[in-house]
Amino acid sequence: MFNQVSSPVVGPAITTRNFASDVRKITLIPGDGIGPEISAAVQKIFQAANVPIEWETVDVTPVRYPDGKFGIPPAAVASVNRNKVGLKGPLMTPIGKGHRSLNLQLRKEFNLYANVRPCRSLEGYKTLYDNVDVVTIRENTEGEYSGIEHEIVDGVVQSIKLITEEASLRVAEYAFQYAKDNNRKKVTAVHKANIMRMSDGLFLRCCRETAEKFPEIQFEEKYLDTVCLNMVQNPHKYDCLVMPNLYGDILSDMCAGLVGGLGLTPSGNMGLNGALFESVHGTAPDIAGKDLANPTALLLSAVMMLRHLKLNSHADKIQAACFSVIKEAKYLTGDLGGKAKCSEYTNEICQRV
Amino acid sequence: MFNQVSSPVVGPAITTRNFASDVRKITLIPGDGIGPEISAAVQKIFQAANVPIEWETVDVTPVRYPDGKFGIPPAAVASVNRNKVGLKGPLMTPIGKGHRSLNLQLRKEFNLYANVRPCRSLEGYKTLYDNVDVVTIRENTEGEYSGIEHEIVDGVVQSIKLITEEASLRVAEYAFQYAKDNNRKKVTAVHKANIMRMSDGLFLRCCRETAEKFPEIQFEEKYLDTVCLNMVQNPHKYDCLVMPNLYGDILSDMCAGLVGGLGLTPSGNMGLNGALFESVHGTAPDIAGKDLANPTALLLSAVMMLRHLKLNSHADKIQAACFSVIKEAKYLTGDLGGKAKCSEYTNEICQRV
Ligand SMILES: CC(C)[C@H](C(=O)O)[C@@H](O)C(=O)O
Ligand SMILES: CC(C)[C@H](C(=O)O)[C@@H](O)C(=O)O
Repeated sequence: MFNQVSSPVVGPAITTRNFASDVRKITLIPGDGIGPEISAAVQKIFQAANVPIEWETVDVTPVRYPDGKFGIPPAAVASVNRNKVGLKGPLMTPIGKGHRSLNLQLRKEFNLYANVRPCRSLEGYKTLYDNVDVVTIRENTEGEYSGIEHEIVDGVVQSIKLITEEASLRVAEYAFQYAKDNNRKKVTAVHKANIMRMSDGLFLRCCRETAEKFPEIQFEEKYLDTVCLNMVQNPHKYDCLVMPNLYGDILSDMCAGLVGGLGLTPSGNMGLNGALFESVHGTAPDIAGKDLANPTALLLSAVMMLRHLKLNSHADKIQAACFSVIKEAKYLTGDLGGKAKCSEYTNEICQRV
Repeated sequence: MFNQVSSPVVGPAITTRNFASDVRKITLIPGDGIGPEISAAVQKIFQAANVPIEWETVDVTPVRYPDGKFGIPPAAVASVNRNKVGLKGPLMTPIGKGHRSLNLQLRKEFNLYANVRPCRSLEGYKTLYDNVDVVTIRENTEGEYSGIEHEIVDGVVQSIKLITEEASLRVAEYAFQYAKDNNRKKVTAVHKANIMRMSDGLFLRCCRETAEKFPEIQFEEKYLDTVCLNMVQNPHKYDCLVMPNLYGDILSDMCAGLVGGLGLTPSGNMGLNGALFESVHGTAPDIAGKDLANPTALLLSAVMMLRHLKLNSHADKIQAACFSVIKEAKYLTGDLGGKAKCSEYTNEICQRV
């Protein structure tokens, strides 16, 4: 959990941000594989754009705690607790017993309850779909990710999907507030309450209850399978979507696929006391260290972070520069069908901010 | 459960099918909404093609059992138990307490453990994707569909995902055997064992174990989210896919979306002692009774049924007639952008069988 007794930092930082003392400290977790390269690219672009933040780079290589389990090092935890906002590259999940996914550990540790993934078609980058513009908002702490599993007898296993009113209400609230703040029209609650009547039923009731508090936002309920079918036929049916953890895992990847994949889509994990923005693609060990990686997903995550920090003009500037380089299609990295190196793409963005 | 003591019918029926006595009885559940119309269409086409089967039409309107619960009427259960093979149109799920989805009840009642849904692009019917040809094979009896749920305390609900070695092995076995019998190259096991380590882990181990018995079939393991992403970018990466219940619900709908929707894709529920083929689209109450429905999904399900009965030449003939009418695009129903009535489309197929 974020240290609950510390005074909130986001508020004051916003109102005083013209002062030199206002440089905001941000925890940077560069990550594994291509992580360090794409993080360096983002840092370079931020510097070129004069973004008033200072990076605090931390290492999250798991350390062994007294109880024998591996976890994020205390210094990294302290940094996030202090700074409340972080940016994170891709992390490898260590193999072997006693290791939990570091990604999940970060989400749980800091109570990052809503995972927001906007998927927008990028002008100039052709896929089968045009003008996609959907946002998946995923409950990020429970559901099928509860981690509670048992072998009842030999060959019979149960995994528990945990749905609570508290977590459902807060993610629903987040979704509607997000829709309102971002001038979006509709929130779709995605569920299988025809099958999981009690758990998804509870989730759905929380969405309905919340919808009533936001009469200006249209609300609809759809089965997960129906959304999957409609999404590949006509993604324009949807706007913002809110759903339990696993459904969000699936739908966000699918939506990313519609606009070009995880190399292009940002992600924000929003918590009560802080937020962690991350690229959700892999570590791409095959191209790591070769100046071939595409930093776009991490850069757009960093842009989301700037909006969270209310540094909107910096966010706009960087986003416009990134989009214009992609639209021109002269400096695209290999994954987008281009020949540019990561550094060339990055420099081009730097020149336009 | 199918009546386990009766002698198997499928075997003898196959070897003696040139005799008049060999006319095979099939249970027909026409269903609700457009169900009766599309069932009549299939019956008409089967008659035109001289298919040696006799329909036993049953009503599945739920009746109240002595324990107070509603369920499929005993006469319908007896018919399926006797005939071992059924064809089913869409059913409405009755609303209100004490009603379970009839679809699910049928799957459970007859232990229909593997749900097979082939998705192929239809020549002449354009979608965003060309030459899609994937088959989802879904565990059909447990997983997230266990129906076991509790409210632990107020506002805290758990739903149990149940994975057993028995059910996982038999669906894996079914998938590999299907791949082998249908000259397919690869089976992909779809899972989230990075999250549900024990349950999806067990499922995955069963797939691996089964894969070893089929060295001629390529085997791969993929995360569900990755499959969703890849499927919308390049469905040609996949061939047969096997997975736990809910994942199959999602992926089969998504794949259907790639080739034109549930109005075009067949489905077979395969059991130990019998099988039930069904169209999985809705009952479309708005167009029911107006001769506007598209019977293709039910017809192609009936074609799957014919292959199951080893009536392959009849299956080939009907399938070819159906495909040629769609390819010509002169007699398409409204859902496919045409103007033909259900009866016109049906007659056209009848003339070509
Ligand atoms: C890496 C994995 C644990 C994670 C998840 O399943 O949530 C990923 O797929 C994601 O979407 O962030
Ligand atoms: C109708 C519903 C209960 C069913 C399911 O969830 O399995 C349907 O979506 C299907 O795929 O057959």
